[in-house]
Amino acid sequence: MEKIITIGREFGSGGREIGLRLAEKLGIPFYDKELITKAASDGGLSPNIVKEYEESRISGLSVIHAGRNLIAHYQQPLTDQVFLAQSKVIRSLAEKGPCVIVGRCADYVLQGKSINIFVHAELQARIERKSSMDIGVVTGKLEQHILDIDKKRKKYYEYYTDFKWGEMAHFHLCIDTTHVDMDGCANAVFHYATNFR
Amino acid sequence: MEKIITIGREFGSGGREIGLRLAEKLGIPFYDKELITKAASDGGLSPNIVKEYEESRISGLSVIHAGRNLIAHYQQPLTDQVFLAQSKVIRSLAEKGPCVIVGRCADYVLQGKSINIFVHAELQARIERKSSMDIGVVTGKLEQHILDIDKKRKKYYEYYTDFKWGEMAHFHLCIDTTHVDMDGCANAVFHYATNFR
Repeated sequence: MEKIITIGREFGSGGREIGLRLAEKLGIPFYDKELITKAASDGGLSPNIVKEYEESRISGLSVIHAGRNLIAHYQQPLTDQVFLAQSKVIRSLAEKGPCVIVGRCADYVLQGKSINIFVHAELQARIERKSSMDIGVVTGKLEQHILDIDKKRKKYYEYYTDFKWGEMAHFHLCIDTTHVDMDGCANAVFHYATNFR
Repeated sequence: MEKIITIGREFGSGGREIGLRLAEKLGIPFYDKELITKAASDGGLSPNIVKEYEESRISGLSVIHAGRNLIAHYQQPLTDQVFLAQSKVIRSLAEKGPCVIVGRCADYVLQGKSINIFVHAELQARIERKSSMDIGVVTGKLEQHILDIDKKRKKYYEYYTDFKWGEMAHFHLCIDTTHVDMDGCANAVFHYATNFR
């Protein structure tokens, strides 16, 4: 099997960084924000619209009160267009050869054709991790910020897939980064992925 | 942190074998059935009683219809005695030093003092794995046998702990053995565990 690796992750768990290190160790491309840009240009959507509607931006109201098929007409086509454009890019990248793709329901889009990793950590560890970065959120509001983003990722994932977000059975490897540094985690995933048949 | 590693597992996923290889790689003791024997002698319970009431033997009826506090008096004391005796042994083994412990809610018993691994696999892979062993069940009945044992393990775990069986958030590493051989899995866990702080 070609080693296409997808990474789902809780916000602040270090999933993106593990993906990056893993791609370096394996000598294969890594896709994250580049993917959005590519989706935007390939799908003929303006980068601003993609940014507005990508992954964590799906409105809570539209999902909770309207449901999948009842979302107000002015909003649904854009979120779906962005998702479809990104899915098309993900499939096209996967066909080109081994790579690491972070987020964007790539595990679902590539069902059966990828090694699917989920990265998570205890809330306190994620707060500390994000505190040490400059992400433009004051420390006192970080916890709520993290919970909000996870809530949106979960909604987005469960809106576009048939799976529950972060449910073990849908992932080949679920790794908690609370007590293991990024390199230790990337090494564990590396040993798993290189033995995957 | 002392490297106490607990392993929860779906039946037929190879969790016991991974635990054994991991213990060898780390050069630390491995506890599985020995634990039951030790619990039996330490707790003053006869080995036959322990065998009858250990892990997967808790009665479905007693849990479903009676609930934790209402289990018929003649049964509850024995299952609880076995669980308490095993928990005592688990804590005592963990105090002695690094080791690998398979099953028996050890992750819950040692809360916060262990690295908790959960091993799972797709059903078909587990059927094939058990088919290749002689476990005294005819091939046509293996699927039901596997599902029955998992159901009992789940009931036992959820009866004695506050957690859901196999829920990612309660484990540091969840590993699917469907596409990776035992040594590849043990290697991945080894790299994770040796970097655990």
